[in-house]
Amino acid sequence: MTIAEAAAFFRDGDRFCIVTHRSPDGDTTGCASALCRGLRALGKIAAVLENPQTTPRYAPWLEGLTVPREGAGDTVVTVDVAAETLLPENAEHLTVALAIDHHGSNTGFAQQTLLDPGKAACGEIVFALLQELGAPLDPVSAGALYVAVSTDTGCFQYSNTTANTLRVAAALRDAGVAAAAINRALFGVKSLRRLRLEARLTESTVFWAGGRVAVCVLPLSWREELALTEDDLDALASFPRAIEGVEAGVLLKEKPDGVVKLSLRTGPSINASAVCAHLGGGGHPAAAGASFKAVLGEALELVRAAFAGEGVEV
Amino acid sequence: MTIAEAAAFFRDGDRFCIVTHRSPDGDTTGCASALCRGLRALGKIAAVLENPQTTPRYAPWLEGLTVPREGAGDTVVTVDVAAETLLPENAEHLTVALAIDHHGSNTGFAQQTLLDPGKAACGEIVFALLQELGAPLDPVSAGALYVAVSTDTGCFQYSNTTANTLRVAAALRDAGVAAAAINRALFGVKSLRRLRLEARLTESTVFWAGGRVAVCVLPLSWREELALTEDDLDALASFPRAIEGVEAGVLLKEKPDGVVKLSLRTGPSINASAVCAHLGGGGHPAAAGASFKAVLGEALELVRAAFAGEGVEV
Repeated sequence: MTIAEAAAFFRDGDRFCIVTHRSPDGDTTGCASALCRGLRALGKIAAVLENPQTTPRYAPWLEGLTVPREGAGDTVVTVDVAAETLLPENAEHLTVALAIDHHGSNTGFAQQTLLDPGKAACGEIVFALLQELGAPLDPVSAGALYVAVSTDTGCFQYSNTTANTLRVAAALRDAGVAAAAINRALFGVKSLRRLRLEARLTESTVFWAGGRVAVCVLPLSWREELALTEDDLDALASFPRAIEGVEAGVLLKEKPDGVVKLSLRTGPSINASAVCAHLGGGGHPAAAGASFKAVLGEALELVRAAFAGEGVEV
Repeated sequence: MTIAEAAAFFRDGDRFCIVTHRSPDGDTTGCASALCRGLRALGKIAAVLENPQTTPRYAPWLEGLTVPREGAGDTVVTVDVAAETLLPENAEHLTVALAIDHHGSNTGFAQQTLLDPGKAACGEIVFALLQELGAPLDPVSAGALYVAVSTDTGCFQYSNTTANTLRVAAALRDAGVAAAAINRALFGVKSLRRLRLEARLTESTVFWAGGRVAVCVLPLSWREELALTEDDLDALASFPRAIEGVEAGVLLKEKPDGVVKLSLRTGPSINASAVCAHLGGGGHPAAAGASFKAVLGEALELVRAAFAGEGVEV
């Protein structure tokens, strides 16, 4: 489906129910917010289906827009959802009329799909769609789309960022986004707890293979000692790989009940998914994981063996 | 001076010597690189004056462009230099024909000044100038300007970023910048030395005014103890301000000969430039600095008094 065809779909229809994905992030939430507000501004009836997993970080963008399942409109539209299995529990068995998405892996689960895998964020597609529809872009809608494009690109830092991403962000700033406050809240700030955790990880990082592999270990006891929240552990798996010269970053988190969770981030020379497969896990070539029963000392040796199994002597 | 007038200045002249500032950063170096390359492409004789403080991080952008003092051309142009005192040692007593700058605090030290304090980076001004001159934008020049605008905005994250910054970045990406590699090198990776420094700063940060002000101190001795390079200190000034709840982040670096360098980063509630003016410094409302003679203990009290002078009781 093209942007023009999708615009016709929205012009011809009414009573839209917009659905976000499980573990909703900035992209799916921002898209839902902006699309819903844009459709309402055009005189359509529209709402966003409540997502029980929406966190306080992104919930404000959906204020006044959400409805429970029984209040949802007839025409279901998903944003940033790649597969039916990623629909939240309360959206299972809904017939999806249109999926707006940027994942190349989209399964085609919807009746129609507006898909552009060349876009870093689904927000770029929703922006183009709202422009095509002639929907007014107020500062709140622009802010929601700014959250969408900035979170999916690590504030325009990740390799998926394109010139289009930056142009959309510029247009959103022209529309009055309070970008400085959003950037600071989402990207610019760390809690002192998190900084203390990073300090401990720095002091205790172990290097294998002459520095090619960095191993960080997070014992269960640190959570209490440093009063860590779940937010403090956000994206911690990328910490060891971000050390200069490191091609494979290993994070071992001790969990309750004798379980260790391995997170592995790698550059192009090492297949993270293959290494994790030796420990019953999997994932992508550059980002994979596994969970297994072990004490931390054993876990280190198991990870060492998994690397060796892929020809990386550590 | 307007962009058009500056373009006429370059069209009418020849034999340009471009000068960067002391402790050269990505903005001054990227501007010098792109301006020099652009002028050469237009058939002018141009070179960048060697800056003995250029670090390995930014030096590659000046490859093939630099000359020693005796080889410098007649028409001296500075980029991103706010005051005569910020000229490198080998540029002292040079007559500066044109200063291209974005610092509101520019002292007007040059014969003519192309100044736009509304720009986040001097690179945005040089970009507009090169467009006005019709200079071709090859991938290397675009990369140099990308380094300029991205480093001065923390990869488009800081509050100085505008829609124009993002549009310039988009145009630079269109010109073929290898942005993903630049972003990883400049923003995505930290040396172990830098991480150890951050760990020490975390453990030693002092908080004033109930956590509104965070103060980090870098004693001279740490440089040797941690084997720090100048690149390891890059953008360190933003570290204290990035702690949750902090409105003003103070970094005090002990320098040789009893000099202390203050770097201040603030939110909208505190004018960094005004605080630093109490200590003979200046800069932007959200980012400013000063250098003065003091031992570290005295320096802390001087900074405390400077805050008080602006009505911030610490």
